[in-house]
Amino acid sequence: MEQARQAATFDSTLLTHMHYLNREENASSRRAAFARVETALGITDTMQLPHLHTGLDRRELYLEGLRRGRAIVTDMLQHNHTHFVNLTERSQLTNATPFGLNFLMFRRTINLQGTAEQKRYWLPLIDRMEINGCYAQTELGHGSHVRGIETTATFDSAAGEFVLNSPTVTATKFWPGGLGLSCSHAVVAARLVTRGVDHGVHWFVVQIRDNSDSTPIKGVTLGDLGLKMAYNGTCNGYAHFNLLRVPGSSLLAAHTQVLPDGAYVRNDAGAQENLAKQSYATMLEVRRVVIHWAAFGLAQPLTVATRYAVVREQGALMFSQPTVPELAILEYKTQHQRLLTLISQAYAILFASMELDDCFEEHQQEKREGKIGRLSFIHAVSAGLKAWATQAVAAGAEEARKMCGGHGYLVISGLPEMVATACAAATFEGENYVMWQQTLRYLFKQIGALQAGRMLDSDMTESLSGYQQWLQVEGDKSSPSHLLLDSNHLSEPEKLLKIFQHHFHRLLSAAHSFYAQQTRTSSPAEAWNASLPRLLPAAHSYIEYLVLHSMQRRVAVIGKAQPSLLPVLSRLTELFALTTITNPGPSFTSISFAEDRILTADHFPQMRARIDELLVALLPDIIALTDAWDFTDASLCSALGCRDGNLYERLMSWTKQLPVNQQDLAREAWTIEGGIGEFLRGDITSGTKSRL
Amino acid sequence: MEQARQAATFDSTLLTHMHYLNREENASSRRAAFARVETALGITDTMQLPHLHTGLDRRELYLEGLRRGRAIVTDMLQHNHTHFVNLTERSQLTNATPFGLNFLMFRRTINLQGTAEQKRYWLPLIDRMEINGCYAQTELGHGSHVRGIETTATFDSAAGEFVLNSPTVTATKFWPGGLGLSCSHAVVAARLVTRGVDHGVHWFVVQIRDNSDSTPIKGVTLGDLGLKMAYNGTCNGYAHFNLLRVPGSSLLAAHTQVLPDGAYVRNDAGAQENLAKQSYATMLEVRRVVIHWAAFGLAQPLTVATRYAVVREQGALMFSQPTVPELAILEYKTQHQRLLTLISQAYAILFASMELDDCFEEHQQEKREGKIGRLSFIHAVSAGLKAWATQAVAAGAEEARKMCGGHGYLVISGLPEMVATACAAATFEGENYVMWQQTLRYLFKQIGALQAGRMLDSDMTESLSGYQQWLQVEGDKSSPSHLLLDSNHLSEPEKLLKIFQHHFHRLLSAAHSFYAQQTRTSSPAEAWNASLPRLLPAAHSYIEYLVLHSMQRRVAVIGKAQPSLLPVLSRLTELFALTTITNPGPSFTSISFAEDRILTADHFPQMRARIDELLVALLPDIIALTDAWDFTDASLCSALGCRDGNLYERLMSWTKQLPVNQQDLAREAWTIEGGIGEFLRGDITSGTKSRL
Repeated sequence: MEQARQAATFDSTLLTHMHYLNREENASSRRAAFARVETALGITDTMQLPHLHTGLDRRELYLEGLRRGRAIVTDMLQHNHTHFVNLTERSQLTNATPFGLNFLMFRRTINLQGTAEQKRYWLPLIDRMEINGCYAQTELGHGSHVRGIETTATFDSAAGEFVLNSPTVTATKFWPGGLGLSCSHAVVAARLVTRGVDHGVHWFVVQIRDNSDSTPIKGVTLGDLGLKMAYNGTCNGYAHFNLLRVPGSSLLAAHTQVLPDGAYVRNDAGAQENLAKQSYATMLEVRRVVIHWAAFGLAQPLTVATRYAVVREQGALMFSQPTVPELAILEYKTQHQRLLTLISQAYAILFASMELDDCFEEHQQEKREGKIGRLSFIHAVSAGLKAWATQAVAAGAEEARKMCGGHGYLVISGLPEMVATACAAATFEGENYVMWQQTLRYLFKQIGALQAGRMLDSDMTESLSGYQQWLQVEGDKSSPSHLLLDSNHLSEPEKLLKIFQHHFHRLLSAAHSFYAQQTRTSSPAEAWNASLPRLLPAAHSYIEYLVLHSMQRRVAVIGKAQPSLLPVLSRLTELFALTTITNPGPSFTSISFAEDRILTADHFPQMRARIDELLVALLPDIIALTDAWDFTDASLCSALGCRDGNLYERLMSWTKQLPVNQQDLAREAWTIEGGIGEFLRGDITSGTKSRL
Repeated sequence: MEQARQAATFDSTLLTHMHYLNREENASSRRAAFARVETALGITDTMQLPHLHTGLDRRELYLEGLRRGRAIVTDMLQHNHTHFVNLTERSQLTNATPFGLNFLMFRRTINLQGTAEQKRYWLPLIDRMEINGCYAQTELGHGSHVRGIETTATFDSAAGEFVLNSPTVTATKFWPGGLGLSCSHAVVAARLVTRGVDHGVHWFVVQIRDNSDSTPIKGVTLGDLGLKMAYNGTCNGYAHFNLLRVPGSSLLAAHTQVLPDGAYVRNDAGAQENLAKQSYATMLEVRRVVIHWAAFGLAQPLTVATRYAVVREQGALMFSQPTVPELAILEYKTQHQRLLTLISQAYAILFASMELDDCFEEHQQEKREGKIGRLSFIHAVSAGLKAWATQAVAAGAEEARKMCGGHGYLVISGLPEMVATACAAATFEGENYVMWQQTLRYLFKQIGALQAGRMLDSDMTESLSGYQQWLQVEGDKSSPSHLLLDSNHLSEPEKLLKIFQHHFHRLLSAAHSFYAQQTRTSSPAEAWNASLPRLLPAAHSYIEYLVLHSMQRRVAVIGKAQPSLLPVLSRLTELFALTTITNPGPSFTSISFAEDRILTADHFPQMRARIDELLVALLPDIIALTDAWDFTDASLCSALGCRDGNLYERLMSWTKQLPVNQQDLAREAWTIEGGIGEFLRGDITSGTKSRL
């Protein structure tokens, strides 16, 4: 392992600093926070079986989550930092703990939807953690589609109260993190009804448990959803409201209010629109957090799989002598291909996430100056990037797990939980198939602007430059051939970006023509539906273009600050581009680059040859590239993936420490009624003739 | 749901009969066995939360597996059938229970490697379940690569005994199913050493626990591996041998024996070769079981996802009016595409598995007639088909889970366990990346035969017909264009098969040229390694060709027996072919059909248009196609996927029955030391100023 670590062409700590806003002090302060929390939790001894892996039941998993959540929140409060607002000490999203949504969504909703007075009242309580809140939007029968929400909040002007009610089984609030057992308060999405009129969904701050003793408030039934694939350290829950009365001040009233006489009033001209935009803003912020997490969600299992590949010996090459010793699995070419391709994707997500954050910062700055023009671009991009990144992390985490063979199937390898955690993100905070459509809808609007001769959004001028000529062609039928590729230039960043842009333009044009064709005989909604299988790949190809663009830009910036990092990151970027072109993407949302007319059958072998060269050049850096993510051993919680590479002793030691091996479970299994003993004594089969 | 069921164009029970060797009585007898076992287990009430989903810990999961394993074995013994030899009452591989490997691998090994006398002694004990055996091959440091095994069995001629020993930590037997807690005996793979000479790996039958009270035999340390992603109803375990003495008769001696004086004797001319071939045969039989299981492993989550899609309403189409009610998710085109594509894959696996079984039966018959010529073909095909099918089931199961949104993430949806179960098969019984290489190596040998002017294996003449012309070309450089496609014929089965064959020929030729090129400057082993990223897609494309061929043949046979099934199955076959061409396959083992010169950019939109037509035609049959797999509600164990479609009431009811909602866990969480109460009272934050 040390040998593999020494082989690097660059200093991995320099790259680590780049991950934390290019600042060494951020990286150090984060490390110090990790050290304090891990020490407080008593999880720094890597030869000790982590409590998390002792085979816990539902109750124990939750209590362990509580213990960890408390440790990170306490550290944040005592040391005055924000390292764990978005990611926990295990680099999971903080909604993996019972306290995670208090800051991530509960606070944000009140901050965006509350009046100045409401904020003055609630925010300090939240910041001091004197209340713990959750975000209650989805219902048993209704997901992220807000219009479907059934919960009602009916204004009773006589009492000056709202009456919260779940009129049906499907109206039961279902899924909110922390709702089941841990929260005193919730922001609740409910249809505001006053004077008999339904004004649509609004937000209400509601106390759901007695602060002092956890008893649910009368009128609320609460419960936990039981075990999930992962995130069992928190209590995703359900809540049924039975005519619960809450004060009139519960309505978050920044944009709309209900007067004492029951009149419904919009505070500002575009109140409804602002409400929607502000809701967008909450979702957008959480989506940015999810995208950022995705980079680490993929990086974690890759760190484990890479370290495992260095130490694990397995099999021999076909045609090698029977006497040769087994080969480290990192020696296999397919392992280089799989590991380094996925490592390039993890870096691509990280860099794209940083670029998006910068863009968002600029937007915030511009907003303070009174402009709001970039929000729809950022919304469209964050939706698509969320879908693309979470798809990549789910598939890549599972691929990394498979690369650890049978041992990767053990819970103590840490990989099953990483994979299960990764898989959730494709669904939550916007189901990916919905996300893609939002990106595409924005792109269609931009095409509409082009067709009408209007200005494109400023963020789109570069990516749609040259698209004019696609307005003339009929879908797939023919394609502009402005891009003549010769094989000498396939490695140039500009050329690679052009290939991605052409792919995106072609698929966007094909999707748009198809849709336009459908609208001749169908309603826009039906046409949209019929076109979906073409629309998604167009959105997918745009995001791939954007990711490559972001990665190239970011690497250039880093390379200027730290020239020693430029060679390895440039190789990684080229590898990302070439493998994206040559390796088929996920089945249902992408279409092969090989269908593009500009790439001939000759280009592909050339690209594969170049990939081979890049893999050879990157291989010495493979451990450094994973070390640079700077995961602590305790955060990986993996018998296979510790930094020291001491795989087998740790695996055997953790296995022997398992509670199942302290009990005499075998004796129980043999001696209980109906147990193995009865079988072996022949009590069951006596007198039975078997033909098995 | 009933409406969706009535829409079918065919009788789903007729198709069910086809799955069980075309025989109604097999299907009925299987159904009766399921009914008896499910009644005995008390799991027929679908409104009752299954015990499996109550949040069990390691011990409880194992004891539940024991209870279920006992029920199915008892039913087999009492009713004299074999329905559960390969698949359990949940349509899982039987190695999901503590008894599964007794028949599947323990018995088979003794049957193949034992002398007549050994078989006379052991087989009746196994068949009456008076012993329970497991298959102890893999070690902590060594997977399926038999040559790496470290465990030794040293012959002590003075005592007439073998001494079993694990010389290192990595020699610890690790992973065998049933080994940890449940087995009295094991067949153990160990290096036979006699007179100081290591004769390589041989098989020994060894008692590991006292039959009457479960105590490990002195000299053996046993334990469980703890929780895995799935298969927690059995005890994959470890065993460390410390100079354990076993009788000389423990050596399974059909092919080699050790005389009392320690002489090592081969019983027949090709003893070593026969030993290897027989080991092949065991692996091959188990692989056939895995392939057959894979069809059902994919079918299960698809049954759930399809039923969910019929009932679940979510969102609205883009551009639809705000007032329209939410839409059943089955209405979305992408849902048709995903569900039906995957359903076509599940049927493709099933039909390919049946064809392979038939081929194997013919081979067995021929072997009895003294021929053995087909074994290497069957071995190569079963390896590749195992890799292809298990890759498809792992990816498809997870896709099906994602199609159930957030609810698919709940353990009570049944989907997480289906996915976790599906994921294992890509690794066990031969890691897929090793499997692909075995297929490819066989194909290279066939090319060698062609080049040398020798006969091809009879099973290969059709699939390699026309390959002669590829011998002349230089890899990807140019390609024979004997296949002129016009778009009118894209739907003809023969034409589709030709496209698959061309794809396979081209990739095989490219792989072979690349490898040949490498051997000019490298050893065969190094050349093989350097070529791996090209070799795997060639093997992959051969298997895809074979699967389509098998599916077409099988559908033709079924169509003759039951003409009413022909239209739907023909559509499904065409959909399988077209979606395989147009949808990119998994990244690392496939190369897009779009790189083939015979398919022009124009063909793809035409194929996608045809796919749209097929989806429309197949949609009314979607419930019938999944009903035909004939899963019982109890076997699916899913709150989302019961036959009646009563989704929400069941989900809410099961959730409320969870033990976590019977305890007052919230109170515990709030009142324990370090609990939520301390936070909310401000005990932690008093005096701390936060800037969060």
